[in-house]
Amino acid sequence: MKFMCQMSITFPESMSPETKADYQAQEKEYSQALQRAGEFEAIYRVAGRYANVSIFEVESNDRLHEILSGFPMFPYMDIVTTPLCKHPNSIK
Amino acid sequence: MKFMCQMSITFPESMSPETKADYQAQEKEYSQALQRAGEFEAIYRVAGRYANVSIFEVESNDRLHEILSGFPMFPYMDIVTTPLCKHPNSIK
Amino acid sequence: MKFMCQMSITFPESMSPETKADYQAQEKEYSQALQRAGEFEAIYRVAGRYANVSIFEVESNDRLHEILSGFPMFPYMDIVTTPLCKHPNSIK
Amino acid sequence: MKFMCQMSITFPESMSPETKADYQAQEKEYSQALQRAGEFEAIYRVAGRYANVSIFEVESNDRLHEILSGFPMFPYMDIVTTPLCKHPNSIK
Amino acid sequence: MKFMCQMSITFPESMSPETKADYQAQEKEYSQALQRAGEFEAIYRVAGRYANVSIFEVESNDRLHEILSGFPMFPYMDIVTTPLCKHPNSIK
Amino acid sequence: MKFMCQMSITFPESMSPETKADYQAQEKEYSQALQRAGEFEAIYRVAGRYANVSIFEVESNDRLHEILSGFPMFPYMDIVTTPLCKHPNSIK
Amino acid sequence: MKFMCQMSITFPESMSPETKADYQAQEKEYSQALQRAGEFEAIYRVAGRYANVSIFEVESNDRLHEILSGFPMFPYMDIVTTPLCKHPNSIK
Amino acid sequence: MKFMCQMSITFPESMSPETKADYQAQEKEYSQALQRAGEFEAIYRVAGRYANVSIFEVESNDRLHEILSGFPMFPYMDIVTTPLCKHPNSIK
Amino acid sequence: MKFMCQMSITFPESMSPETKADYQAQEKEYSQALQRAGEFEAIYRVAGRYANVSIFEVESNDRLHEILSGFPMFPYMDIVTTPLCKHPNSIK
Amino acid sequence: MKFMCQMSITFPESMSPETKADYQAQEKEYSQALQRAGEFEAIYRVAGRYANVSIFEVESNDRLHEILSGFPMFPYMDIVTTPLCKHPNSIK
Repeated sequence: MKFMCQMSITFPESMSPETKADYQAQEKEYSQALQRAGEFEAIYRVAGRYANVSIFEVESNDRLHEILSGFPMFPYMDIVTTPLCKHPNSIK
Repeated sequence: MKFMCQMSITFPESMSPETKADYQAQEKEYSQALQRAGEFEAIYRVAGRYANVSIFEVESNDRLHEILSGFPMFPYMDIVTTPLCKHPNSIK
Repeated sequence: MKFMCQMSITFPESMSPETKADYQAQEKEYSQALQRAGEFEAIYRVAGRYANVSIFEVESNDRLHEILSGFPMFPYMDIVTTPLCKHPNSIK
Repeated sequence: MKFMCQMSITFPESMSPETKADYQAQEKEYSQALQRAGEFEAIYRVAGRYANVSIFEVESNDRLHEILSGFPMFPYMDIVTTPLCKHPNSIK
Repeated sequence: MKFMCQMSITFPESMSPETKADYQAQEKEYSQALQRAGEFEAIYRVAGRYANVSIFEVESNDRLHEILSGFPMFPYMDIVTTPLCKHPNSIK
Repeated sequence: MKFMCQMSITFPESMSPETKADYQAQEKEYSQALQRAGEFEAIYRVAGRYANVSIFEVESNDRLHEILSGFPMFPYMDIVTTPLCKHPNSIK
Repeated sequence: MKFMCQMSITFPESMSPETKADYQAQEKEYSQALQRAGEFEAIYRVAGRYANVSIFEVESNDRLHEILSGFPMFPYMDIVTTPLCKHPNSIK
Repeated sequence: MKFMCQMSITFPESMSPETKADYQAQEKEYSQALQRAGEFEAIYRVAGRYANVSIFEVESNDRLHEILSGFPMFPYMDIVTTPLCKHPNSIK
Repeated sequence: MKFMCQMSITFPESMSPETKADYQAQEKEYSQALQRAGEFEAIYRVAGRYANVSIFEVESNDRLHEILSGFPMFPYMDIVTTPLCKHPNSIK
Repeated sequence: MKFMCQMSITFPESMSPETKADYQAQEKEYSQALQRAGEFEAIYRVAGRYANVSIFEVESNDRLHEILSGFPMFPYMDIVTTPLCKHPNSIK
């Protein structure tokens, strides 16, 4: 079951560059583990924004929330979720 | 070079079911030819809406517009385009 | 797996009262069959609007779309879908 | 008399993890007492957001406000309230 | 129990002046009967718009919807409803 | 001459409970004096929000602004003003 | 007492050029009579839009509505009204 | 003096392909004459939309409006105008 | 050449009353000098808001920006600018 | 391949005038180097706002993001990107 998530990140003004770098390292590790496990199908950077477009393949809404709320940067993310279905014109 | 297009379709009230079916058949053919050619990577139905989320892989903005404006249903589509880039956390 | 759908209906100006009544009768039958089957948990009228708030319990996004796009009035509906999960404070 | 409330929570940047955890514990207790008493029919987490969809069954607008403004986290909540009625297609 | 309703009216282009005048006469009668009965406390015209701000005093959401959906012009109205409560600073 | 004002209040995070209580006491006194004087016809709490709907009866826009900007909490208020007129269907 | 009105005009597709020209002639006459009488202080075209910014000087909200609803093109206008006051920095 | 205009075109459903083609031919001629005269510096198609981004160099707001309202398709255009100035970082 | 500017002011929470008063005094002096010079035709307070509606008469967009960015409070202002033209119905 | 970027800048309240000036100097150098290299075709100030309209000529979305995220002030910018194509009416 697929979902598109449009995530944008806003760090608080007071966060130090070290803390940001630490969050980004944790985020990379968390994100890549999910990609390797097959639940995180694709992630794209949005040109010109600290934001991404992501495609997830999960078994339920509960699992999607578990994944999203587990992102190290979750408290700094705004996430808009669109539930996706098979399209009749898709050849996949 | 990837783009996400969020397309929603609104047919005019006066369009007959036959004309709609004809448009949908043309659309399927056009869409699947592009998918086979590799420029149209993915198309998903948005749950509960006459709308889709599509990912294109094209060489330029001009080619993207050529593809989008060539859709048989283009006059009835509202399309929001997001230019995408490689994300540093992507394992692809 | 639960979803909240906020549906609002707009009939075209040209639709006759008979056609509207016919749609509403079909809608009632379709809606009540789904409620009896357990996939359509609740439907509420929004005060002062030709709109409703509905809760669905389905096995996938694909099934949700199948149900929603099967509503007799689907072409006249605008539907906003929110994927729901179990809340940690819920006693159910 | 039913109402749907869409609540989203934003804690200030300066709040410590301990204070947050304390608020969440108080919130759980308050919320579950209302659920047991029958005035708080359902609460769902919105996938990917620190937000919920809640259904209340109360005798008046005044009682609804009393309940909502009594939530320990009320100062950090944005609440959108939709008054609901019985829907003619509901089988309940 | 009070509600504020912000109603705006849009007649279809094809409606004749006679039909409009007939709707307005029916509306006046319906509206004034409710005002005399005490459930429709106040109605104000919004300066420069074919719209009004109305205050209702009703026993439930269901009764509010019954009143609003009974307006002769209901199919041509957009209504935004705000549930109101007693304010601690009110001297009434 | 009547105006509807939709006021919502946002206190800064740093404000102490004592300062808030002091503002609220001043606000009550200011508000009730205006109500007794007849220029502030009605104030209602919006269910679930730190906001109100207020009806003023004043002689001019200048007087309205004088009243509104004199509210002790004015710097923390967002106010949307709607100029009202007599409605042809009103029985008052 | 001054008000700024932002008016935009949308004629229905079916209106003939003759009817439009007739409306515009009536509008000019009505508008200029009000300007000469001193209640319509200024009217400006918005660059690139079939819209205007107008300043009125009237004695009440009721008079403002009487003027605005009397415009020959009123049924085709969307009007946003902003009540204005004397500014402390104005030298007038 | 430069302005950016974001123009989007919506033709009425009833317009025939011949009329559209005729409008487009007139538009091309009008547009290119202005480009040659130096007042219309640049026009770009927005990818995926029947819309453009245009840069004008004119002597006044009045001249800008004269140009824009002279477009053959002006009645079918929505135009958002942004007044531009020299930027301190520009090397031109 | 005229422009309407809708300016709203938001001071940061940390600004002292003295600093605010100082800004307001500087603003008055700057504003009145421009009014006397004829480039700042009118300024009105918006009822109920810390905001104004202003009309400027300037020779170019560059001059308008020079004036606006020179306001002492410019860093705390949000300004929406509408380019105005002579209206065919204006008698001025 | 061209893109229009609408950039607006918001510095945090706590940033000192020296730091701002330092950022602006770095920004000028970065911006002018890109203009000289031909990838940054034009930059305009938006009248009355700390914002600009910029036109880029780049080989890909990835290069566009590299340029935009390299701006010294990138963390303080909100950027809206519109992909542009050749317009059939352009004479260039």
